[in-house]
Amino acid sequence: MLHGRSSLYPYERFPSKGTPVRRELSESCGLFGVYGVRNAARMTYFGLYALQHRGEEASGIAVSDGKTIHSHVGMGLVTEVFDDLRLGALKGPVAIGHVRYGTAGASEIRNAQPLVVDCSRGQIAVVHNGTLVEADAIRDEFEAHGSIFHTTTDTELIVHMLARPNHVMSGERGIKQALASLKGAFSLLLLTPEQLIAVRDPHGFRPLVLGRAGRKGWAVASETCALDLVKAHYVREVQPGEILFIDANGLRSERFVGEERVRPHHCVFEQVYFARPDSIVFGDMVHEVRIRLGRNLAREQPVEADVVMSVPDSGNSAAIGYARASGIPYDRGLIRNHYVGRTFINPRPEDRVTGVDVKLNAVKTVVKGRRVIVVDDSIIRGTTSRGRIRMLRRTGAREIHMRVSCPPTRFPCFYGIDFPTPGELLAADRDVSQIRDFLELDSIGYLSVEGLLSSLSGPPENYCTACWSGDYIVPIDRHLGRFRSRRKK
Amino acid sequence: MLHGRSSLYPYERFPSKGTPVRRELSESCGLFGVYGVRNAARMTYFGLYALQHRGEEASGIAVSDGKTIHSHVGMGLVTEVFDDLRLGALKGPVAIGHVRYGTAGASEIRNAQPLVVDCSRGQIAVVHNGTLVEADAIRDEFEAHGSIFHTTTDTELIVHMLARPNHVMSGERGIKQALASLKGAFSLLLLTPEQLIAVRDPHGFRPLVLGRAGRKGWAVASETCALDLVKAHYVREVQPGEILFIDANGLRSERFVGEERVRPHHCVFEQVYFARPDSIVFGDMVHEVRIRLGRNLAREQPVEADVVMSVPDSGNSAAIGYARASGIPYDRGLIRNHYVGRTFINPRPEDRVTGVDVKLNAVKTVVKGRRVIVVDDSIIRGTTSRGRIRMLRRTGAREIHMRVSCPPTRFPCFYGIDFPTPGELLAADRDVSQIRDFLELDSIGYLSVEGLLSSLSGPPENYCTACWSGDYIVPIDRHLGRFRSRRKK
Amino acid sequence: MLHGRSSLYPYERFPSKGTPVRRELSESCGLFGVYGVRNAARMTYFGLYALQHRGEEASGIAVSDGKTIHSHVGMGLVTEVFDDLRLGALKGPVAIGHVRYGTAGASEIRNAQPLVVDCSRGQIAVVHNGTLVEADAIRDEFEAHGSIFHTTTDTELIVHMLARPNHVMSGERGIKQALASLKGAFSLLLLTPEQLIAVRDPHGFRPLVLGRAGRKGWAVASETCALDLVKAHYVREVQPGEILFIDANGLRSERFVGEERVRPHHCVFEQVYFARPDSIVFGDMVHEVRIRLGRNLAREQPVEADVVMSVPDSGNSAAIGYARASGIPYDRGLIRNHYVGRTFINPRPEDRVTGVDVKLNAVKTVVKGRRVIVVDDSIIRGTTSRGRIRMLRRTGAREIHMRVSCPPTRFPCFYGIDFPTPGELLAADRDVSQIRDFLELDSIGYLSVEGLLSSLSGPPENYCTACWSGDYIVPIDRHLGRFRSRRKK
Amino acid sequence: MLHGRSSLYPYERFPSKGTPVRRELSESCGLFGVYGVRNAARMTYFGLYALQHRGEEASGIAVSDGKTIHSHVGMGLVTEVFDDLRLGALKGPVAIGHVRYGTAGASEIRNAQPLVVDCSRGQIAVVHNGTLVEADAIRDEFEAHGSIFHTTTDTELIVHMLARPNHVMSGERGIKQALASLKGAFSLLLLTPEQLIAVRDPHGFRPLVLGRAGRKGWAVASETCALDLVKAHYVREVQPGEILFIDANGLRSERFVGEERVRPHHCVFEQVYFARPDSIVFGDMVHEVRIRLGRNLAREQPVEADVVMSVPDSGNSAAIGYARASGIPYDRGLIRNHYVGRTFINPRPEDRVTGVDVKLNAVKTVVKGRRVIVVDDSIIRGTTSRGRIRMLRRTGAREIHMRVSCPPTRFPCFYGIDFPTPGELLAADRDVSQIRDFLELDSIGYLSVEGLLSSLSGPPENYCTACWSGDYIVPIDRHLGRFRSRRKK
Repeated sequence: MLHGRSSLYPYERFPSKGTPVRRELSESCGLFGVYGVRNAARMTYFGLYALQHRGEEASGIAVSDGKTIHSHVGMGLVTEVFDDLRLGALKGPVAIGHVRYGTAGASEIRNAQPLVVDCSRGQIAVVHNGTLVEADAIRDEFEAHGSIFHTTTDTELIVHMLARPNHVMSGERGIKQALASLKGAFSLLLLTPEQLIAVRDPHGFRPLVLGRAGRKGWAVASETCALDLVKAHYVREVQPGEILFIDANGLRSERFVGEERVRPHHCVFEQVYFARPDSIVFGDMVHEVRIRLGRNLAREQPVEADVVMSVPDSGNSAAIGYARASGIPYDRGLIRNHYVGRTFINPRPEDRVTGVDVKLNAVKTVVKGRRVIVVDDSIIRGTTSRGRIRMLRRTGAREIHMRVSCPPTRFPCFYGIDFPTPGELLAADRDVSQIRDFLELDSIGYLSVEGLLSSLSGPPENYCTACWSGDYIVPIDRHLGRFRSRRKK
Repeated sequence: MLHGRSSLYPYERFPSKGTPVRRELSESCGLFGVYGVRNAARMTYFGLYALQHRGEEASGIAVSDGKTIHSHVGMGLVTEVFDDLRLGALKGPVAIGHVRYGTAGASEIRNAQPLVVDCSRGQIAVVHNGTLVEADAIRDEFEAHGSIFHTTTDTELIVHMLARPNHVMSGERGIKQALASLKGAFSLLLLTPEQLIAVRDPHGFRPLVLGRAGRKGWAVASETCALDLVKAHYVREVQPGEILFIDANGLRSERFVGEERVRPHHCVFEQVYFARPDSIVFGDMVHEVRIRLGRNLAREQPVEADVVMSVPDSGNSAAIGYARASGIPYDRGLIRNHYVGRTFINPRPEDRVTGVDVKLNAVKTVVKGRRVIVVDDSIIRGTTSRGRIRMLRRTGAREIHMRVSCPPTRFPCFYGIDFPTPGELLAADRDVSQIRDFLELDSIGYLSVEGLLSSLSGPPENYCTACWSGDYIVPIDRHLGRFRSRRKK
Repeated sequence: MLHGRSSLYPYERFPSKGTPVRRELSESCGLFGVYGVRNAARMTYFGLYALQHRGEEASGIAVSDGKTIHSHVGMGLVTEVFDDLRLGALKGPVAIGHVRYGTAGASEIRNAQPLVVDCSRGQIAVVHNGTLVEADAIRDEFEAHGSIFHTTTDTELIVHMLARPNHVMSGERGIKQALASLKGAFSLLLLTPEQLIAVRDPHGFRPLVLGRAGRKGWAVASETCALDLVKAHYVREVQPGEILFIDANGLRSERFVGEERVRPHHCVFEQVYFARPDSIVFGDMVHEVRIRLGRNLAREQPVEADVVMSVPDSGNSAAIGYARASGIPYDRGLIRNHYVGRTFINPRPEDRVTGVDVKLNAVKTVVKGRRVIVVDDSIIRGTTSRGRIRMLRRTGAREIHMRVSCPPTRFPCFYGIDFPTPGELLAADRDVSQIRDFLELDSIGYLSVEGLLSSLSGPPENYCTACWSGDYIVPIDRHLGRFRSRRKK
Repeated sequence: MLHGRSSLYPYERFPSKGTPVRRELSESCGLFGVYGVRNAARMTYFGLYALQHRGEEASGIAVSDGKTIHSHVGMGLVTEVFDDLRLGALKGPVAIGHVRYGTAGASEIRNAQPLVVDCSRGQIAVVHNGTLVEADAIRDEFEAHGSIFHTTTDTELIVHMLARPNHVMSGERGIKQALASLKGAFSLLLLTPEQLIAVRDPHGFRPLVLGRAGRKGWAVASETCALDLVKAHYVREVQPGEILFIDANGLRSERFVGEERVRPHHCVFEQVYFARPDSIVFGDMVHEVRIRLGRNLAREQPVEADVVMSVPDSGNSAAIGYARASGIPYDRGLIRNHYVGRTFINPRPEDRVTGVDVKLNAVKTVVKGRRVIVVDDSIIRGTTSRGRIRMLRRTGAREIHMRVSCPPTRFPCFYGIDFPTPGELLAADRDVSQIRDFLELDSIGYLSVEGLLSSLSGPPENYCTACWSGDYIVPIDRHLGRFRSRRKK
């Protein structure tokens, strides 16, 4: 059962019934860590740069020189937060770094990671990708025992669990015990002055890979594209339920839960949308998965048309797959402005410019008078998609057929992807014909769950498809769930 | 004949023989202007945003409220230089804007445009795309008559010519006379408190298009993609040798040179590389031109291979054309990091990360063990290309065949593209087999000049191909040329 | 006994023996709080502005709208950290603010105050002026029980004590119990969503005054000059050992220690140097106290001379007192550069400019050929004083007699003033003639402790003179003390 | 006759009747130049730092390495515009620098100095303190001949005059001829790649002094306090009508006007208010002049009272003089906030905080129940003074007698001080009793012109007292004057 924060406030608080800071409910972030290289902070900078698509809100690096941890975090991209001077001040052969995904309302420097604290273990720095389940309840329990919270992140909660005295007594065993009690999605890197520790939850919700950096060093990253950039060699995934200790004695792998509790449940949305196409994620090359998604989509949802085009860039690979399987020519009908993503003034109604226009422009000769198939990776709220479809109509498309390389997104994610509430999900309570009408399309076709799973190399039960199927492996009381705003009405 | 600056300094200067500031020799920029809309500065902001690829160094907007010109310029992207506050301070229904291409050494705020000055005509603001020929000589002549120069831009020279008293006397005739005496490439927008003036040189080297903005307004832009974003409707190109006066009396078109001097000579490099694929330039849709370039390239330079891929994003359209004509499947073998172009620390040798790696990463499954055709738009120095080819080799490509959608770039541009000196151009003194060896390729094939020109809808004589053919329509003394550093040795 | 941090680290830490972040050992800061006004954040801004001399490193404000606490902190002066936008975002009728004194090495944003946390009491914000004794030991104890520390401030320790569950159970009694267990100097303001709480330690080391703001509101500040600026009316000091609860029920005063533990021991250094002359501190007008210090100094340390001048601005009042009592004319022999205190490049030896020159310049006509008496408030290291004396010699002073309006500063402060270590204190192991020689003076004269105490209106036993006498009311194990660097050698 | 800009625009302008940028009418700035030292830019930084009180709006330095001039300017204080990096990039043994006084409306980077241009003389950099008379007319004449203006400063006009070809032909003679044709107030430094030139107008309105820097170098500065800081030795004033050429051949002094045109007319306001008290200006130590002003004021305007206090810091010296002559004790009744002058949010009416409160606070014990004499250097608009007097009343002053150490300021300055228009000058059309009533005083007393002039060591005719007497040495048509806004009504 997932407790909403406010439900836990019936008891008297002194001196006032405080309204606590909102806990952040989801985080989709990028992690990078390295051990045993000449300039760990610089390598981490490049690693984070390759993972920037996983989070643009804040960036941070903590480095150990063997005795002390120094860190720097800031709001913004890694290229905005760090320069040669900042990196030069972070000396040492071990480092961890984090890029953070921005969710409205909690965009504050204090929530930026790595979180570096002083506790009975000494100094410790932590970066985290994922979302804990029951976090609010645990947090309340900690507070009831006198703990204080500076941030609204799950990461701080994890640190509290690691710092608990019973764990301290028992060294590494204590850490494993603390991790074993965490529920939900967590790929973690811990840095102590002498050790780099990599952890992945027993379901392996979020990705985490291990590589060799140079001859003697090790690198850990959310995706292999980060290893590629720093010329580290991909070794393998960190296994679900595995904890890696990397220190002067080399690398040591252990389990922090019994094998019976290890049940891989990888987030397919990483394959569909989130990861970079040049990354290997959960053992598959993302670009190839997407090509297969497109092929399967063409088979399941054929339609007669003149051209296949993608919503760039996330739909590119699937569109190529669709074109190949259907035999309809692939073309570029929408061009992406390369400067998208930078700070931008908000267009006003009188500007007659919309957020959609700012990102993409249609290529008239490809679209005008044509029957176009538009391949997109997914549809969340549908408003952006509708804007694009209107742009294509304005440009003169004769027919517009949208093909989506995943099933309808109907359910929230409790394991780290920040979907809107069900009420805002286009497909939550609409059937396909209603979606088609909403989007003003001639037709729409989604890939089936089976078509999706058959595009992946692992057995179907190893993937989490909860956002499409509603089957959550970690039990969630959906009526409470995270949707406080709903219950409040 | 083009004079280098230093050759003109034999005479004594008092009190010392000054070493003057280096004049900037080339500018490839983006222009946008609008007349008769509610908030001209905001519309110009969006227009410049769509043209940002034409220059990232500096951005500026000047606006007239009918009486006075106000302006703001700054270093950086238009999204960095302007915010709601800055735009709100620029009130009025007429505006011009500029994005500036950065060339090393003269990256200073004082060279940013619009240039706004006070002269006998009153206030005048100017933005310029192109390069004047014989600019140094004219500048020296002006200085000899007592003029002072604050910047190193051609733009300031143009203003001096416009401000000359003989021109003042004769009103619009004077302006036309001044323009008629300019040699070289110039697409210009002039803003006075009451008038927007658009000018294109008699050869039409650089693009400039006219559109309708709203029911009564007009917009002028370097490319149609800017018109698209602000919902202005493309009307036509500003003609070579044409001057448009837009004011309370509407739009009036005139010629500033006799028809006999109008000889279109459009820069094909705009089609090959510089313009956005979703723009109409010189009457052709750029994406379609590039598709045709790819098709012609496949016919002229066939090769057996497993996959056709592009160097993203500039090679994408040509690669699609190549794949279609050759029947070899198109795939994405190189993935572009979306954050490229932002301020970045300089990789050091010990980082083992190169500028090439930072921009692109190879997709292993597409490349490994395959014979790949890599389509690129052009090769300038060759060092970047070689880095990419090495990356593909490292990833395991069996054979690498590069196909380039234009002829070998051998000669400098004096009309606005900032190529390096001939000594640095890979193809300047290498034949194709030497280029292949330099790039460590299995084969290389360039498109012919004929194949290039046949991809365009205009008659061949209407295009400038000087950088490939060495035929300059505006006479250049190549031995002097712009290469002072050479002569100095 | 005061523990240095490192002495407490003999035991094993897991997974590594961490070197913890250095705890900050002293803080001399400014506090301002207000309850029940229209725009509490803006009033706090002005209050802090008047207290800026108490700390220039960081500034922060937390405000409650009755339900939630919002805050903003930043490095730098209050005028640098806040603008209209920032203040406008801090809405509500209750606020507390802090200006922080910078001590080398821990100048980090995370140490800035108010510290705002979420604990079992709900949200709480705290600002603190003073230094706790035995803080390291308490901190270690907390860590041993599982607490984690994000900052190196005493303030965080105070919050941990307030958050302890046994205190929570008992409401306000719990807070008082927690405060009663604190040792050392602490003037505190606590903000909960509904209450403003002001606290002063039983010795009243650091100042804290209460005022009326408007008809119904209350203001609390370190010095009365802050009340003056916001037009609040000075009511009285917050009493040593007093806790004020200010909420919807009005103001309520309580004691958090028994009367027997209340022993006023005000820091005289506030009178001598730290406070603004226009403030009432410990019941005395600071300017008048300093005039009396100067008068007593003239009686105790007379000397024949031509002119009395001060080291501006801290010596101004005492110099006037000295001049009046001695009959020797007062003049301005040193002029202060008004721009001192701003970021400044560090003069290098080859610049032939020193930090002393940058701050003050001598007035030739006042100094040249004259016998001058220079009145300063105190001498700490002596190097700055020597620089000034050399400047006066260079300007042509015939004789230089320094008169200091307090006794020789010989001992460290454990209650909130950041003196250097004894080894760096000029007077720690020098007698007066050695000091005179070191400073290259003709004579030097210090005020006696008796002369100092007789300048104050309270009974002598109510003041702390430890930095001059070595008598510490709160027991300190001086051999451990705070001087780790010493012991380490 | 001084022409307002708009009066000169009756003729038709083409293509529109432009409203030109407003020319700036007054500048009170600080100059520093140095020749022949190791690091000229750093020394100039320190020199400007000492002169910062002469202008806070913008700062700039130009340096020559013997061949090329490099420069950097920015908005703000010298400490804000320059850091080690910026200074390190300005290499060379010769430099000039400028601090600029901000006047509303023209606070733009392009108006910052040094102005560095390229003309027929080669590169030239100029800094200027003063105001030209008839500048608008000359500017119009230049424009009519084709010149263009980038800024609204007199400085640019001076450069145009220096660049005129007839001057160029004749070398140094040409420069002198150009200077001879300038009318108004101008202290100038010119920098060419090889030469530092210092110029002072024939009336010597604004100060300029010469010093020796090190054994072989020279320094030039607006005030001697800048020489003191860089350890340069004061040699003498640059004489009215003198031009100093400093180059590899040493220092050479010449006249640029015949002796009959040299009529010293130093600005007394420098002595009264503008200069630093530790400077020697026009041969007098400023502090001593102010002491004498205070003495004379006490003799001319005696009053019975308990205490003499100043408005700090500009009134400090005169208050000491008044106290000495009157025998009434000097005390500090108003305390200045040291942080005044920094960016500050604008107090709003509801804040109940005024700009006056922010700067000064009254010392209750000095003021309450007392008859106070408040000595101020001058009164311009009177609103600030009235605010202070109200503060003293609020604090409980029994009687308030203001004494002003100069005559009533009645007339505008055309030679470099930026007074408000006559309509805003308190004394322009009020007699002393009306002023007293406006300021809510018990009495007010001004120093007479005779009392003022007798405080100076030069003959009375050598000083400009136009702002008090209305006698302008350079003829001004007062009905046109600078007061366009008035005429427009």
